Amino acid sequence: MPTKVRIALDAMGGDHGPPVVIPGAALALRSRPHAEFIIVGDRARIEPLLAGYPDLRNASRIVHTDVAIRMDDKPSQALRSGRWKSSMWLAIDAVKRNEADVAVSAGNTGALMAMAKIHLKTMARIERPAIAAIWPTLRGESVVLDLGASIGADTQHLIDMALMGSAMARILLHIDRPTVGLLNIGVEEVKGLDEVRSAGQWLRENPLPHLDYTGFVEGDDIGKGTVDVVVTEGFAGNIALKTAEGTARQIGGYLKAAMSRSLMARIGYLFARGAFRALAEKMDPRRSNGGVFLGLNGVVIKSHGGTDSEGFAAAVDIGYEMVRDELLTKISQMLVHQDQEAAVRPAAGAIS
Amino acid sequence: MPTKVRIALDAMGGDHGPPVVIPGAALALRSRPHAEFIIVGDRARIEPLLAGYPDLRNASRIVHTDVAIRMDDKPSQALRSGRWKSSMWLAIDAVKRNEADVAVSAGNTGALMAMAKIHLKTMARIERPAIAAIWPTLRGESVVLDLGASIGADTQHLIDMALMGSAMARILLHIDRPTVGLLNIGVEEVKGLDEVRSAGQWLRENPLPHLDYTGFVEGDDIGKGTVDVVVTEGFAGNIALKTAEGTARQIGGYLKAAMSRSLMARIGYLFARGAFRALAEKMDPRRSNGGVFLGLNGVVIKSHGGTDSEGFAAAVDIGYEMVRDELLTKISQMLVHQDQEAAVRPAAGAIS
Repeated sequence: MPTKVRIALDAMGGDHGPPVVIPGAALALRSRPHAEFIIVGDRARIEPLLAGYPDLRNASRIVHTDVAIRMDDKPSQALRSGRWKSSMWLAIDAVKRNEADVAVSAGNTGALMAMAKIHLKTMARIERPAIAAIWPTLRGESVVLDLGASIGADTQHLIDMALMGSAMARILLHIDRPTVGLLNIGVEEVKGLDEVRSAGQWLRENPLPHLDYTGFVEGDDIGKGTVDVVVTEGFAGNIALKTAEGTARQIGGYLKAAMSRSLMARIGYLFARGAFRALAEKMDPRRSNGGVFLGLNGVVIKSHGGTDSEGFAAAVDIGYEMVRDELLTKISQMLVHQDQEAAVRPAAGAIS
Repeated sequence: MPTKVRIALDAMGGDHGPPVVIPGAALALRSRPHAEFIIVGDRARIEPLLAGYPDLRNASRIVHTDVAIRMDDKPSQALRSGRWKSSMWLAIDAVKRNEADVAVSAGNTGALMAMAKIHLKTMARIERPAIAAIWPTLRGESVVLDLGASIGADTQHLIDMALMGSAMARILLHIDRPTVGLLNIGVEEVKGLDEVRSAGQWLRENPLPHLDYTGFVEGDDIGKGTVDVVVTEGFAGNIALKTAEGTARQIGGYLKAAMSRSLMARIGYLFARGAFRALAEKMDPRRSNGGVFLGLNGVVIKSHGGTDSEGFAAAVDIGYEMVRDELLTKISQMLVHQDQEAAVRPAAGAIS
């Protein structure tokens, strides 16, 4: 465990930039006194804000740049205009040069993933990185991946994601052997994709020390918390995430309308205010903000672009934990275990 | 519009069989006096129930069979054991022989789709059927397809689903030109599947009389009701549906826990009971029960297996409307329009 966790912040990322990033970092520092920050961005906008947070100022240094990636830049544009010089690139660069342990950005996902992939590269044996998020469930929290880093997944990529997701879940959920399920559909006739089936077969036949494969799960198992780690390819994963967000907002809308439709309901609302506050907190997307890029030589955290300082602090927090509990080492160990299994049992090693 | 709508019921389908199907049909008949029923299944179990509903008995005839498809039968098993003789097959067969206009079953989806495909066959020019459902949204209701009839979709299948979904939405939503969106993911770097992009291009370049293509939508647009018809391939569609169901149950669980956590909250709950009842009704999956099989030479409705009589009545109701408003004719007209467009504009006709 490193004594210090060094965190590089893309101060210009997100819908708001420094006014969210700086207070967010200050908030995170309060509960994480071992954090140190490299704050990358426009010094003229960062310094005045930093003046309000002396503790953060003492734990930070600023790396100035004028260049910022816009939220609607395409990845190719972002690379053309922002490679080597944007706040996003330089935050990742700090990780690359081992000046930081983790980079956190609320900037646009496509650009961040493109830059992280080009600059940090994928870990040996991992072909494609994935984006994993913490999903609140009825049982607590689960890790769900991939949420859109790539479309489609072959058998090997699904197995790799199961390993990487387990490593992340060990840190987040403090479980030594997280349960893992492959997302599939329940309609008998079609029985799911070939790749999902063969990844499931491999995981069943090759038990690993830190991964407890339990089989297929369906969409409604995510919210139930049936498994600690849900693995799927990025198209379906992204649609599942967005659909769940949409459904939560929809029910919130119904609830609000229902609670204001009569005097009785409004009185009831007043009595139950505490309960509604608890409910709102449960459903608060800020609490689980922070997508983790998995499979790269470095830890990169994506915060929601529209989040506030509390949400950004949550993303910094996740980055902190991933570094402190050595995510990359845990993933590497899993990959070694997998290689050993594949070598010991060549019969089951027919991975496409 | 036919004077009568003739409905074939698989009385043995679902978790409960006749005790749900018979009262469900009776309920549907009350609001649909022009319905006539062919009730297929075990006469010894159907007749005693029917005795309690004289109106339904007068509007029905029973077709007896001993054979029923089990909820966990695989489609291949179901075909082996139930072709020509099961209640599910015979309900579809009534449609095939033009003795009924629509078949409704709460039996297992895979078996029902397999039998419907084999016996009714797909409409000319349609390669694969789809399952469409009514999705409650903040704006009202939308049609979402495919929910799992097949995995993956090429450009032509996506276009066909847009046409078929629009025809269904015209009937359900009473709109002459429903808005249609293709479900995609928003991560810029990956920009969605090639097939989704080229289907979008075709729909944009070939305006059709009863379909207003508005572009890509994301998962959270479904609950918002951004478009009247959401089109996607079956794997992602099934996962979206199940994820939304799981999220709704999850929030219901949070709400229940929040409302019983303190005396104040319980008092508030008592005052707001009416509002909670309204909310529960909004979220009631029975209200929108009834998956419509699209693309077949006949109308087949799939009810949830676990539904009660009220939910089964809703499924019968949807079948009734689809027949009364001539779903199949509307789909055929759309296909003719599409062919004309494709012929007029060969440049845009490069459909894979």
